[in-house]
Amino acid sequence: MSFIDTLNAAWTRTQSLLCVGLDPEPSKFPGALKNRPDAIFDFCRAIVDATAPYASSFKPQIAYFAANRAEDQLEQLIAHIHEQHPGLPVILDAKRGDIGSTAEQYAREAFERYDADAVTVNPYMGFDSIEPYLAHEGRGVIVLCRTSNPGGSDLQFLNTDGRPLYHVVARLAAEKWNANGQLGLVVGATFPREVEVVRGIVGDMPLLIPGIGAQGGDVEATVRAGRTEGGAGMLINSSRAIIYAGKDDDFAAAAAVAAKKTRDNINLYR
Amino acid sequence: MSFIDTLNAAWTRTQSLLCVGLDPEPSKFPGALKNRPDAIFDFCRAIVDATAPYASSFKPQIAYFAANRAEDQLEQLIAHIHEQHPGLPVILDAKRGDIGSTAEQYAREAFERYDADAVTVNPYMGFDSIEPYLAHEGRGVIVLCRTSNPGGSDLQFLNTDGRPLYHVVARLAAEKWNANGQLGLVVGATFPREVEVVRGIVGDMPLLIPGIGAQGGDVEATVRAGRTEGGAGMLINSSRAIIYAGKDDDFAAAAAVAAKKTRDNINLYR
Repeated sequence: MSFIDTLNAAWTRTQSLLCVGLDPEPSKFPGALKNRPDAIFDFCRAIVDATAPYASSFKPQIAYFAANRAEDQLEQLIAHIHEQHPGLPVILDAKRGDIGSTAEQYAREAFERYDADAVTVNPYMGFDSIEPYLAHEGRGVIVLCRTSNPGGSDLQFLNTDGRPLYHVVARLAAEKWNANGQLGLVVGATFPREVEVVRGIVGDMPLLIPGIGAQGGDVEATVRAGRTEGGAGMLINSSRAIIYAGKDDDFAAAAAVAAKKTRDNINLYR
Repeated sequence: MSFIDTLNAAWTRTQSLLCVGLDPEPSKFPGALKNRPDAIFDFCRAIVDATAPYASSFKPQIAYFAANRAEDQLEQLIAHIHEQHPGLPVILDAKRGDIGSTAEQYAREAFERYDADAVTVNPYMGFDSIEPYLAHEGRGVIVLCRTSNPGGSDLQFLNTDGRPLYHVVARLAAEKWNANGQLGLVVGATFPREVEVVRGIVGDMPLLIPGIGAQGGDVEATVRAGRTEGGAGMLINSSRAIIYAGKDDDFAAAAAVAAKKTRDNINLYR
């Protein structure tokens, strides 16, 4: 099954475009989890199980696991999602980018070691830094295009032969790099007008859209800008606003409430 | 001690500009190491100890460790270099790039968990994706500018207001992002003319130059293009041509011969 088919099936079945981002920071965990050896796994598993009814995908951010020597807990977490919530794809947010021989290793990390359904990658090093991921059939590769952070404009908005650099990346992804239909793009919700422009360039390509929630992106404007004709085509990500919705031992229930509210808010404008 | 001072001291003491890249692939290890549980550490330690007399820095590529679930061996390896070869800085080749809150985690990974002296980062997401690393005093941050791979031209050579994108990155790094003097740039040896242009833009900033050895860059042209007035300023990296110089149980001795030859070849043109 291709990554696009997996996504389409998840969007149809769940009637949700919400991607729950998993950015575990032990210092923000409730008291009951503190000092537990597998606190990161326990926290994320509780969030996943509570929010799964309202989500169509999950996005663990590998930096939070790596900074805490918790790669084994990331492996366990993704295995748990596949076992307990089959059909909800896992996007490994790693933003890798390296020469071909090294990219082969990163692709093995993402798809063989962690068994992610898709991985985020950085386009700065060009197509041969992306190609090795495409050798993994059925997996998705989501390329940074227009990122949600303030510094995103430093390079992505530079005037490149009359258009901003992120347009060029969107065109390369849509017209040259996507022979197998495995690609998606990251476009931040902090710039809804730019989501619309990218949607115009790339047709039905899936867009991973971070930046609602803690980063302040406007849900209505984002959904109207990014939806495909079928009212889907987007993985709209919220991380901190969901997983830290509650600070106490009811954190999972609070995350479920926040996830349901976000899903419903998105669905108002599909 | 600042990262620049560490580098200058290493260049002066060792009279070498060679950076030995550590890209361990178990399938290429000699028979005696096969099936040993810590084969990656054992292989890299042998390479490090044999080549240290001819090198001024080491550059482990994290992808090779991550693909093999060998983060613990990477920790051990860097600790070994610091203990046994003090004064030879370790550049963690990770090419990270993410929003500020995530970059803080990656900086902790590189500098606290692994205790690297410097880390490579990707500029596509702009300054706020680089700034969190600079909070780690005494550490270096080496920004991708002009990479050595064929696809490097896809974005880096785009015409950006009349100059290639990698010029803009060099200027941003030299003029805006380097308030603390912690930055360096990656510029591939596969394009010596472009090494010269970048050197012209950035003054004495250290350049990490991959692409000699397996990738075919010309040593004489590279050194003449990239040297500073003092005949230093460069971390000239060779990975595969050194670490896989021998395929049998004499691999460490073969690596030492290759490292010495590369150092001497570089020194002909300083």
